[in-house]
Amino acid sequence: MNLIENIQSTLLMGPGPSCVHPATYHALSRPTLGHMDPYFISIMDEVKANLRLLFGTSNAMTIPVSGTGSAGMETAFVNLVEPGDAVLILINGVFGMRMADVAERLGAQTDILEFEWGTPVIPEAVEARLKMKKYKIIAVVHAETSTGVCNPVAEIGNMIDEDSLYIVDTVTSLGGIPVEIDRWKVDVTYSGSQKCLSCPPGVSPVSFSEKAMNALKKRDKKVPNWYLDINLLTKYWEGNSRVYHHTAPINMLYALYQSLRNILDEGKENVFKRHSDVHYALVNGLDEIGFKMLVKEQFRLPMLNAVVVPSGMNEVLVRSKLLNEFRIEIGAGLGPLAGKIIRIGLMGHTARTENVTRLLDALKAIL
Amino acid sequence: MNLIENIQSTLLMGPGPSCVHPATYHALSRPTLGHMDPYFISIMDEVKANLRLLFGTSNAMTIPVSGTGSAGMETAFVNLVEPGDAVLILINGVFGMRMADVAERLGAQTDILEFEWGTPVIPEAVEARLKMKKYKIIAVVHAETSTGVCNPVAEIGNMIDEDSLYIVDTVTSLGGIPVEIDRWKVDVTYSGSQKCLSCPPGVSPVSFSEKAMNALKKRDKKVPNWYLDINLLTKYWEGNSRVYHHTAPINMLYALYQSLRNILDEGKENVFKRHSDVHYALVNGLDEIGFKMLVKEQFRLPMLNAVVVPSGMNEVLVRSKLLNEFRIEIGAGLGPLAGKIIRIGLMGHTARTENVTRLLDALKAIL
Repeated sequence: MNLIENIQSTLLMGPGPSCVHPATYHALSRPTLGHMDPYFISIMDEVKANLRLLFGTSNAMTIPVSGTGSAGMETAFVNLVEPGDAVLILINGVFGMRMADVAERLGAQTDILEFEWGTPVIPEAVEARLKMKKYKIIAVVHAETSTGVCNPVAEIGNMIDEDSLYIVDTVTSLGGIPVEIDRWKVDVTYSGSQKCLSCPPGVSPVSFSEKAMNALKKRDKKVPNWYLDINLLTKYWEGNSRVYHHTAPINMLYALYQSLRNILDEGKENVFKRHSDVHYALVNGLDEIGFKMLVKEQFRLPMLNAVVVPSGMNEVLVRSKLLNEFRIEIGAGLGPLAGKIIRIGLMGHTARTENVTRLLDALKAIL
Repeated sequence: MNLIENIQSTLLMGPGPSCVHPATYHALSRPTLGHMDPYFISIMDEVKANLRLLFGTSNAMTIPVSGTGSAGMETAFVNLVEPGDAVLILINGVFGMRMADVAERLGAQTDILEFEWGTPVIPEAVEARLKMKKYKIIAVVHAETSTGVCNPVAEIGNMIDEDSLYIVDTVTSLGGIPVEIDRWKVDVTYSGSQKCLSCPPGVSPVSFSEKAMNALKKRDKKVPNWYLDINLLTKYWEGNSRVYHHTAPINMLYALYQSLRNILDEGKENVFKRHSDVHYALVNGLDEIGFKMLVKEQFRLPMLNAVVVPSGMNEVLVRSKLLNEFRIEIGAGLGPLAGKIIRIGLMGHTARTENVTRLLDALKAIL
């Protein structure tokens, strides 16, 4: 049996991957070109330009790295961290924890400022910490996928002095809510293709500011990761004469190209409004059948909805029935929130009213 | 203009990517599933089983990592190298050089044994070196993509004692010539999807022996790369209850699934014979129009043909005309061989007589 033939189309309403637009599937399966083919390089150049529009940046070094979102996180830290560097990680969920693990493996002296999961990072606490100690790097997640909380990245950006570098994870936010890297004084950001960009997983857009690029040039030693070394990647992604580094994931980049165009053709603001409208439709619909949200209204992400599991509900069974009987995937809670919440994603192409209706109808049928 | 719509189908006869089979393009664009969906996990399991067949191994830890072939190289070294480890790299081309760069970035004490590019590694020289010094790791490329030379990996495997680990790069060999990891006493190997597997670039099959897994468990410190840490990847790829690590490149894994089936359905031996037959057809056809091979016959790879540029031929112009007028891509020489050779790939789905005919006809028309 060929398992590929029996894949059933699934409504992806978990924490990512999200549903993929038909035009993106079409792009994915266009004929593979060589990674040095001038036509392919023209596709790369348009991907860079469109990523800059979405990230809100003029950073020259804005490219997709050849791995999923976590490879983007690795890229951010491995290029900037040198052993012994003081790094402050602001944590209020799984992905902040992951940042700390990544940084520590690279030899950083990592301090953690942790906030209650399901609530945002408190800027005043960050400010107080930054007055106590100098850090080379301060890192935070914009949209915490594990809790559905939006962190105040712009406010934190204003607190960071010119000797420090600011890393912001935009894996879940990019393409669903405004991301304005330059205005927020972010030095390095990374995202993923499979969230609000609605592209299959496999590439991770990153952006490095000039300040970050200068820090990279001042390193004592080479970046301890050849594959993700931004110095080397620059030579393939920038300039008039491109130098082979590694073979780029050609077809995944076609899909990213198309998914960026889908967003820009619809209009960024329209896309953000669609996410917001559909989010409210979901929250209202859930409220009617007795579900409450984990996160206070003003801190909620539209694309990642953390819903409290009512007492007495077998959430494992509900998720399993949704998947097996209705082909709808939603997400479980992670870490301390496992069993306590379910996570409903409204990302990119998934964020449509008819999908909310389909999910609510299925939930009503199950409960 | 949507650049995706104007991609022209190209005959990929360079050093990779190779032409993709229509069934693999079809698989690539099947509906995306969640990375924890039990149906997707059944696809992962069959990918692992089929990779074992192709690698000639019973290694449990045989998986595709979520990056292109160079991510596989990074995976091999970052999991095994600890700072100060003695590593011997056997070099006769660009990819051996890359191994040394990767290992040195990780703090290895790297010794290099270099052989003339275009000739194979000499086992006696390796044996003499191994008598002089103990190494934790000995690494070599099986099929040197930059020169078209096949290295004697089985003979070298017999020289490596039980305290050392043997890393072999099978990026270009896997699926084109026999690879027998277990018989050759290889501890870690990595490959790429876009060579003889004829899948688009984006995933890199790796295999770790039990000896390598034990070495990994004995590390003093965590692997300095969260994304490629085999300890963590094991929990997602093995066992009855899978633990989320990073979001796998779902659709690329569909394509890998199909490309492995293509090879196994045709039969490994038939596939190897097809590569060999088509290689001889190419060599004979090139000989008739005055081209000579760089590598002596007994050391040649069938899937990567290094052809000496005749004096007076403008190889840049010829490659450019092949691409622009005939939509045939061939490869340039790399490093010291730049301008001196052209590289003609006959990998996977590309390795067909009609493609050789098309290339030879185009060359005749140009020259």
